[in-house]
Amino acid sequence: MMHAIVIRTRKRSGISGWQQRISRKELKKCTFWRSVLAETLGTFMVVVVVLGSSCLGNRTSRSDSLLPVLAAGCSVVSLVQCFGEISGAQLNPAITFALVCARKLDLLHGMVFTVAQCVGSICASAFFYLSMPTTVSNQMVTRVSSEANAGQALAMEIFSTFLLAFTIFAVDDRRRRDLSEPGSLAIGFSLIAGSLSAGQVSGGSMNPARSLGPALVTGIWEYHWVYWIGPILGAFLAGGSYEFFFASSASREKLVA
Amino acid sequence: MMHAIVIRTRKRSGISGWQQRISRKELKKCTFWRSVLAETLGTFMVVVVVLGSSCLGNRTSRSDSLLPVLAAGCSVVSLVQCFGEISGAQLNPAITFALVCARKLDLLHGMVFTVAQCVGSICASAFFYLSMPTTVSNQMVTRVSSEANAGQALAMEIFSTFLLAFTIFAVDDRRRRDLSEPGSLAIGFSLIAGSLSAGQVSGGSMNPARSLGPALVTGIWEYHWVYWIGPILGAFLAGGSYEFFFASSASREKLVA
Amino acid sequence: MMHAIVIRTRKRSGISGWQQRISRKELKKCTFWRSVLAETLGTFMVVVVVLGSSCLGNRTSRSDSLLPVLAAGCSVVSLVQCFGEISGAQLNPAITFALVCARKLDLLHGMVFTVAQCVGSICASAFFYLSMPTTVSNQMVTRVSSEANAGQALAMEIFSTFLLAFTIFAVDDRRRRDLSEPGSLAIGFSLIAGSLSAGQVSGGSMNPARSLGPALVTGIWEYHWVYWIGPILGAFLAGGSYEFFFASSASREKLVA
Amino acid sequence: MMHAIVIRTRKRSGISGWQQRISRKELKKCTFWRSVLAETLGTFMVVVVVLGSSCLGNRTSRSDSLLPVLAAGCSVVSLVQCFGEISGAQLNPAITFALVCARKLDLLHGMVFTVAQCVGSICASAFFYLSMPTTVSNQMVTRVSSEANAGQALAMEIFSTFLLAFTIFAVDDRRRRDLSEPGSLAIGFSLIAGSLSAGQVSGGSMNPARSLGPALVTGIWEYHWVYWIGPILGAFLAGGSYEFFFASSASREKLVA
Repeated sequence: MMHAIVIRTRKRSGISGWQQRISRKELKKCTFWRSVLAETLGTFMVVVVVLGSSCLGNRTSRSDSLLPVLAAGCSVVSLVQCFGEISGAQLNPAITFALVCARKLDLLHGMVFTVAQCVGSICASAFFYLSMPTTVSNQMVTRVSSEANAGQALAMEIFSTFLLAFTIFAVDDRRRRDLSEPGSLAIGFSLIAGSLSAGQVSGGSMNPARSLGPALVTGIWEYHWVYWIGPILGAFLAGGSYEFFFASSASREKLVA
Repeated sequence: MMHAIVIRTRKRSGISGWQQRISRKELKKCTFWRSVLAETLGTFMVVVVVLGSSCLGNRTSRSDSLLPVLAAGCSVVSLVQCFGEISGAQLNPAITFALVCARKLDLLHGMVFTVAQCVGSICASAFFYLSMPTTVSNQMVTRVSSEANAGQALAMEIFSTFLLAFTIFAVDDRRRRDLSEPGSLAIGFSLIAGSLSAGQVSGGSMNPARSLGPALVTGIWEYHWVYWIGPILGAFLAGGSYEFFFASSASREKLVA
Repeated sequence: MMHAIVIRTRKRSGISGWQQRISRKELKKCTFWRSVLAETLGTFMVVVVVLGSSCLGNRTSRSDSLLPVLAAGCSVVSLVQCFGEISGAQLNPAITFALVCARKLDLLHGMVFTVAQCVGSICASAFFYLSMPTTVSNQMVTRVSSEANAGQALAMEIFSTFLLAFTIFAVDDRRRRDLSEPGSLAIGFSLIAGSLSAGQVSGGSMNPARSLGPALVTGIWEYHWVYWIGPILGAFLAGGSYEFFFASSASREKLVA
Repeated sequence: MMHAIVIRTRKRSGISGWQQRISRKELKKCTFWRSVLAETLGTFMVVVVVLGSSCLGNRTSRSDSLLPVLAAGCSVVSLVQCFGEISGAQLNPAITFALVCARKLDLLHGMVFTVAQCVGSICASAFFYLSMPTTVSNQMVTRVSSEANAGQALAMEIFSTFLLAFTIFAVDDRRRRDLSEPGSLAIGFSLIAGSLSAGQVSGGSMNPARSLGPALVTGIWEYHWVYWIGPILGAFLAGGSYEFFFASSASREKLVA
């Protein structure tokens, strides 16, 4: 049963001209698969950018870790503008989960989007694993730093995903009231800030799909649970706290209920 | 006595529908605590980002100091968009003080916000102090560089906070006339510029709350007064000079009075 | 035969006042040569920026490769705002080719623009070759990394140009519906992301004109075909996939036809 | 004789309420001195940011030169938003000269602004010279690189200022037609691109005032003429080419005249 496709900026686009001649159902179907493809392609692009900018070359100084972070943030700014109207450009199972919990996305979309994101990430990882030299493939996996333990990594993943998801909920909420600040930059910059703060402890994944791909391809599953529980918990907390306390529509009634 | 809550972009939001049924007083109360929580959470996030991106890892070259600066600037761009409409996203006792002096914020809000910001920073610092290895905690404190003395550090803190606060006042003033430039970027970028210019002398704190948290947690109070007097003086000068000379409503009468 | 000059944001500018007195044909001619000059000058500027920021100085750490990437991205953000309304600010034969294929640009414009871009790049390269010491000129050419082979470089060029061209098509499509996100930043940031991801393998050219100039001037043609086939294929795929699947006007009919 | 103060975004601000009661002449006087003060203060801030981020600390790798460039670009983005409506935020004698030539600014304003910018820069340099250790003061001066000669430095200064000034003219022209791209970012990013491309040859000054201050304070006048002739020529060429060929109001008649 598929009803009420709630994509974020849907209302603005409108349905013009010839499109009304197609039956409503077919249009929905088409819109649905388009958004699934957008999530797959978008996650594929983000993961290729992250792996490409972090894998090759020698790391001589610590500021080299800036390159993949900057590349990821910049690609997200672009992809939010590319896919924002099509699928919401979530590109992240943790964000999708939080949107489902906040009833901004129905369950069917949530599940299909999560699968699509994982498929995109696995394709990107497989592409790198097959084409690049084997010394590279070990650098693809997000790991807990040797200076830190799993608990610290979990805490930093929760925090950094909280920052990212909180920004996404705020931008989504704010967008309806048509202010002039660019939301895509806020999202990309919160990703950069979160990645830099968590980078030295957990690698700054903030995205279960991004961690799943390389882990599946290389077979390195060490502390992999950190990169699922951390982001999902962080995004869930961010979505909950934003919707209940800070959203423009948040109300005493919601708090009581 | 609590009257006339003057939050910056309040006028735009409007009070729609069911909200009118709640008594006006309760709504004010709710809005008030929401803004206090926003300041606490926002300052917590900024301080975690700054400490997380500056603490761990070896500093091999000077350009490593770019990482925490960039992380702070990017997080501020995001948080200004998240909390801008809720509390003004001041996240800084020096800015709050200047807004109170400029009569843009009443005294009660100013005091509660300052406490909220300090609580947020202390929580973030305690989290790092308790969870990270002890070698890290010494790096959390903002210090006067060994190449410079307290007077130079004070001057750079005054200057860099002046730049930040001046931008905040200008963006706030400009926003009312609805131009299309993104103010959140101006604020975040002025923070990056100020941090980079003061970084080599004073660490580029520009925020008494950010310096208080680590000092309280580690017990290192050396030159701590620099990080209160510098930013507060800088923000006060910026607010005064903007309001009297440069604001669109600045007038001869104001200068005379 | 020259008819129907279709420059992107033409409709907005309007033809006011005295201009109507000039014959329509002359105006077209003037607009045409202005856009050709814009492409030449824009490509000249991008290539000077890239060569200037990458050539001189010793490369001690890998993060030095950030400088030319950042310079290129920043200059593109500026140039898209400078020339966006005049010629579309394509600055890249691969993008021009994709726009011709998508019937957003007629063939005559496409061919003249491609020549103009190559001329701009050759002038910039010649300027550097003649004025700078000879040790520099070898660093101007985009090369396949010694860690990788031509196939890997081709794949990364296809991918990174796909990301760039996809963003350009999305921004162009979105612009018509007047949203508030800044498209020039999306384009510049996708260039940064693509360059950083491909940089270690192929040098991250993404632009046949940028590779042609230094190759012609220095006479180093090794793997030059990679920098023509890769970007053109990537841009073609991006244009095709965007227009058929993701464009707001994409329809079942287009897919069938 | 002072008439027709033509500040860029003047038309938007409007003259409301009580202001009409003041005599028109006094208001003009007030607006004039406000804009002069804005130029002094703005140039002071830019030069402090540049000197502060470039002076102290050891330069171990080439990517350290990114810090002052980034600081300058970020501060310009902020200051364009702060002072854009007050004085146009030129902050640069070369830009002021080009605006006077393009008849966008009357001669009196041009001369007073130039003096104001130089005063701002000299104050900033004197502040650093007096307060910082003497080893620092030698690093404040923009110099021709030992790898290059004066002619190359002149060429790079002309080019990089051309890029900056061209962007300023384009943003100014575009702004009147109310598009949604943020012009302050275009200007700041063109400064970053220009600085990075010229940085290895001439230090990337692009601003005679920025070079005058440290030269006057330290007494190092070597190749100082490069930093006046280069930027002024570059800005003049940019202004001329934009106004005659690319401006939306550029016409055949202008070309003939």
